[in-house]
Amino acid sequence: MDEFSLISRYFRRSGSSAALGIGDDCGIVSVSPGTQLAVTTDTLVSGVHFFENTDAELIGWKSLAVNVSDLAAMGAAPRYFTLALTLPSPSESFLEAFSRGMFALADQCGIEILGGDTTSGPLSITITAMGELPRGKGILRSKAAAGDDIWVSGDLGGAAHAVGLIRRGLEPPADCLEKLHRPQPRVALGLLLTDTANSMLDVSDGLLADLGHILEASGKGAQLELDAIPLTGSLGRLDRNEALLCALTGGDDYELCFSAPRKKREQVKKIADLAQTPVSRIGTITGEPGIEANLNGQSYRLPARRGYNHFEEAWSLRPGTQ
Amino acid sequence: MDEFSLISRYFRRSGSSAALGIGDDCGIVSVSPGTQLAVTTDTLVSGVHFFENTDAELIGWKSLAVNVSDLAAMGAAPRYFTLALTLPSPSESFLEAFSRGMFALADQCGIEILGGDTTSGPLSITITAMGELPRGKGILRSKAAAGDDIWVSGDLGGAAHAVGLIRRGLEPPADCLEKLHRPQPRVALGLLLTDTANSMLDVSDGLLADLGHILEASGKGAQLELDAIPLTGSLGRLDRNEALLCALTGGDDYELCFSAPRKKREQVKKIADLAQTPVSRIGTITGEPGIEANLNGQSYRLPARRGYNHFEEAWSLRPGTQ
Repeated sequence: MDEFSLISRYFRRSGSSAALGIGDDCGIVSVSPGTQLAVTTDTLVSGVHFFENTDAELIGWKSLAVNVSDLAAMGAAPRYFTLALTLPSPSESFLEAFSRGMFALADQCGIEILGGDTTSGPLSITITAMGELPRGKGILRSKAAAGDDIWVSGDLGGAAHAVGLIRRGLEPPADCLEKLHRPQPRVALGLLLTDTANSMLDVSDGLLADLGHILEASGKGAQLELDAIPLTGSLGRLDRNEALLCALTGGDDYELCFSAPRKKREQVKKIADLAQTPVSRIGTITGEPGIEANLNGQSYRLPARRGYNHFEEAWSLRPGTQ
Repeated sequence: MDEFSLISRYFRRSGSSAALGIGDDCGIVSVSPGTQLAVTTDTLVSGVHFFENTDAELIGWKSLAVNVSDLAAMGAAPRYFTLALTLPSPSESFLEAFSRGMFALADQCGIEILGGDTTSGPLSITITAMGELPRGKGILRSKAAAGDDIWVSGDLGGAAHAVGLIRRGLEPPADCLEKLHRPQPRVALGLLLTDTANSMLDVSDGLLADLGHILEASGKGAQLELDAIPLTGSLGRLDRNEALLCALTGGDDYELCFSAPRKKREQVKKIADLAQTPVSRIGTITGEPGIEANLNGQSYRLPARRGYNHFEEAWSLRPGTQ
């Protein structure tokens, strides 16, 4: 099966709302009046971002999910994506499962494929996703204000715990596996927070690292209530410190972390109900740089962290090289 | 040096015209009223799309050039691109040269970096490029009309000839090397052809394959004058058939192939002058499917070809595996 048949068979879908979809030199999109386009790109490499034996369906889901999560983190409505798929060989079973997983999430989020490229090489997937925003309403990392509540959606730590267990040859609990393999981008929550949150991002490198990005971009600090951090259910069985470590420094959560004025506390709760997405209030933005954390009435000063670093830390994610 | 320092050092530039550039979950762009956005994505994999010992500066140039060429082929004005760079290790000398080559072309074409992702893994580059089009004015593959002249810009075959020589351990002539390593996307020509060309694409897989895409999408055929096909200068030293084979079936030309009504022949020549880009008239669109080629007064029926196929043919591009 050649490249053109592959594209046609697995990636061309009927009913695109784009002005021009797959099949020409470019796709063409119209952008609604009064809106801007948010654009993000993320690559997943086999053996680095997912274990080499991961189901293709889950790879398809997650490749799109991590990008849609970035759109959600700006408060953008998902619209279109391009797929650059590099494959060692054109395996039909891989493509069938991969496209099924990817389009399952696409249909759930209302995002459409606009074009792509298939090439031969070591397995990796780059998706570029585009979403629409009301003009000037993107929720940035740089606008956190002192006194803001700090919120996080869903629960944290499950994906990191699953990775740790898989590396040791153990079977992770179902809820942690689900967090690792089938993250749910918080699209509705992100959209609804447009006029409420001051700052927002998605948690992909661990809460401390990502909150650190907000603090650095905003020139602020934070006081964190570690007892308030929502942990993935099965982490309740772990030692409390180990569970917190997963949530604070583990990656792959794809929850939203945002700050909002204290006076909008009730509004945040209503939005969370409307989006059917749980949120937890985990701390306060402060005027002084640095993160101070409270646990069991004790106060800790946490080191500044620069986030998950692909060139210093990625190798340890490879199965079998721990 | 970590991922964030890398991005900042080599890819963050001052003076972006985007509403929001590198550094948040997404970049944000405004699209001018009355325009649409053309979007394209292409991946270059080491050992498949370029020889493993190619200068990083040339890889940077070409990675962006092949994408800008797709914008040119729609008649779009280049605006923004995202870069997904997968690297075995964060080599500063690679990044310095790669970014220098990429931004040299970006500055020439007026396209700006909007965001990106750096990951660890086997060397590959995926760029997604965006350009603006007057609404409804994209030049498609599907609108060739019977009787249209067929035109091609610049010259063909040089890149394919260079690849053939490099594989045999020989030094290619300078003009062929330049075609292979530093293709010039025909942006001005593409833009100016908006109200003149009926159909257009860029020649990346060889003239026959790419013209075949126009013919298939338009439900038409073609009569080609092989004597009129413009060959890269040094190909004049080759056997005529060998030179034509490079132009007809070799890849990596990144010239524009377009069709335009016969009555616009003088207009096409004026546009080419204005764009300072040579064009050659090489045949006629016909109502009957298939390509008929004339050479030295002889007529040949050429087989339908489906284009450069990454999964059937890419391997032969690898150095040393011929």
